[in-house]
Amino acid sequence: MKIARFATENGPVFGVIEGERIRELDGAPWPELRFSGRERPLSGTRLLAPVAPPVVWAIGLNYKAHAAELGYAIPEEPLAFLKPSTSVIGPGDDILLPEMAPDAVDYECELAVIIGRACRNVSESDALDYVLGYSCTNDVTARDCQYLRDTQWARAKGFETFCPLGPWIETELDPDRAEIATVLNGKVMQKSNTADMIFPVRQLVRHCSRIGTLLPGTVILTGTPPGVGYGRNPRVYLRPGDTVEITIGGVGTLRNGVR
Amino acid sequence: MKIARFATENGPVFGVIEGERIRELDGAPWPELRFSGRERPLSGTRLLAPVAPPVVWAIGLNYKAHAAELGYAIPEEPLAFLKPSTSVIGPGDDILLPEMAPDAVDYECELAVIIGRACRNVSESDALDYVLGYSCTNDVTARDCQYLRDTQWARAKGFETFCPLGPWIETELDPDRAEIATVLNGKVMQKSNTADMIFPVRQLVRHCSRIGTLLPGTVILTGTPPGVGYGRNPRVYLRPGDTVEITIGGVGTLRNGVR
Repeated sequence: MKIARFATENGPVFGVIEGERIRELDGAPWPELRFSGRERPLSGTRLLAPVAPPVVWAIGLNYKAHAAELGYAIPEEPLAFLKPSTSVIGPGDDILLPEMAPDAVDYECELAVIIGRACRNVSESDALDYVLGYSCTNDVTARDCQYLRDTQWARAKGFETFCPLGPWIETELDPDRAEIATVLNGKVMQKSNTADMIFPVRQLVRHCSRIGTLLPGTVILTGTPPGVGYGRNPRVYLRPGDTVEITIGGVGTLRNGVR
Repeated sequence: MKIARFATENGPVFGVIEGERIRELDGAPWPELRFSGRERPLSGTRLLAPVAPPVVWAIGLNYKAHAAELGYAIPEEPLAFLKPSTSVIGPGDDILLPEMAPDAVDYECELAVIIGRACRNVSESDALDYVLGYSCTNDVTARDCQYLRDTQWARAKGFETFCPLGPWIETELDPDRAEIATVLNGKVMQKSNTADMIFPVRQLVRHCSRIGTLLPGTVILTGTPPGVGYGRNPRVYLRPGDTVEITIGGVGTLRNGVR
């Protein structure tokens, strides 16, 4: 099932996509789906980020080959960091090159986990019971802030528009066996499979839930595979007019322009 | 003026403290105060964290003598990081020593800035116009996670209960001339003045607003002066049964137990 969130005259509304129709929900898709009885065509509807997360957790260096391309050791525990909820944008929205740091902005395709039930201190075996579903995300990063200007990544990864999310939440995915790719202006830049994660999704949910309560709508970004622009020779950074597509097999494609 | 938030049968309510009374507000204290006409006695009312922030920004190494005690160079720009909103607790709530990292939990007294009007890319001279007021906060930190286990501070500073905030928002403070102190079990551990900040509050608001929009209720922690437990010989860490008091002259005292 695909759960989307879309713009209406009365503000954002959630709905379930069925073919070319969206069946609207009353309120959020938790604790359970409540259909309002209203429907609308998918075509012509402007999809938003599929949740407005209270907190965005993210995991660094969670694919061995990516840690290697950046020159990092394999972490012994998941490396958690945060992105501000103000960085979230939806499908079709533009990534803005920030005035403070426009020159070294990079893409990172990631599987996004969306929490559907509040949890804290969950076991690895129970962890996926608290997950509503999965989406595509781009952990956009200003490499100059990340490596040269700050020791902490909050600015580098927290600029406005630096967390594209969408196009919807897919509830029926095996998170341990999903193809994941970035296509920049039609060229494949990253291509991997979530099977190559160092810490699988259930361990990441457990880890974050041991730091603090995961509320419904919380998003966890699960790390990026190799092929980022910073790891290439010559380096590749986002430029105005670019189009970045993040595709996850079984979910869909998140497409954003750059300005 | 002191703006508080407190528990009621119908959920959290904002109010203005006048002597021994609280004058209740309708809704949030922005864009302007709307008094509901209801009042209640301050005594017997349970104060909560004075806002439920959408985002908590924090600044590292913003007092020269604190950077020195930890062995860091003076930063050339403010060093921004994030704490999850789930780490916020109110006055009187207990700080919980986390199961994952109970042994090296430290206090850090900080002036908290509470944003009252949405802003982005504000100038230094306009920055304070967007501030609703100030409160006391404790940037509680698990030093083992911060220095030995993670390169990013999100876990070390993001555990549940690691952002005590309160007891209220004082709207009439000069943020550049406020005394600030930590008292642990009756003993003064930190004692300084916000005049010793490397980057004053107006520069921090500007900096964070250049990363992303600051929504009403956003909290910015402004860094801690010297005297943290990690910088002492022997080191001092929080233990069950401790009481930590953060006092800011002109604001009040935030008191939390430890469990």
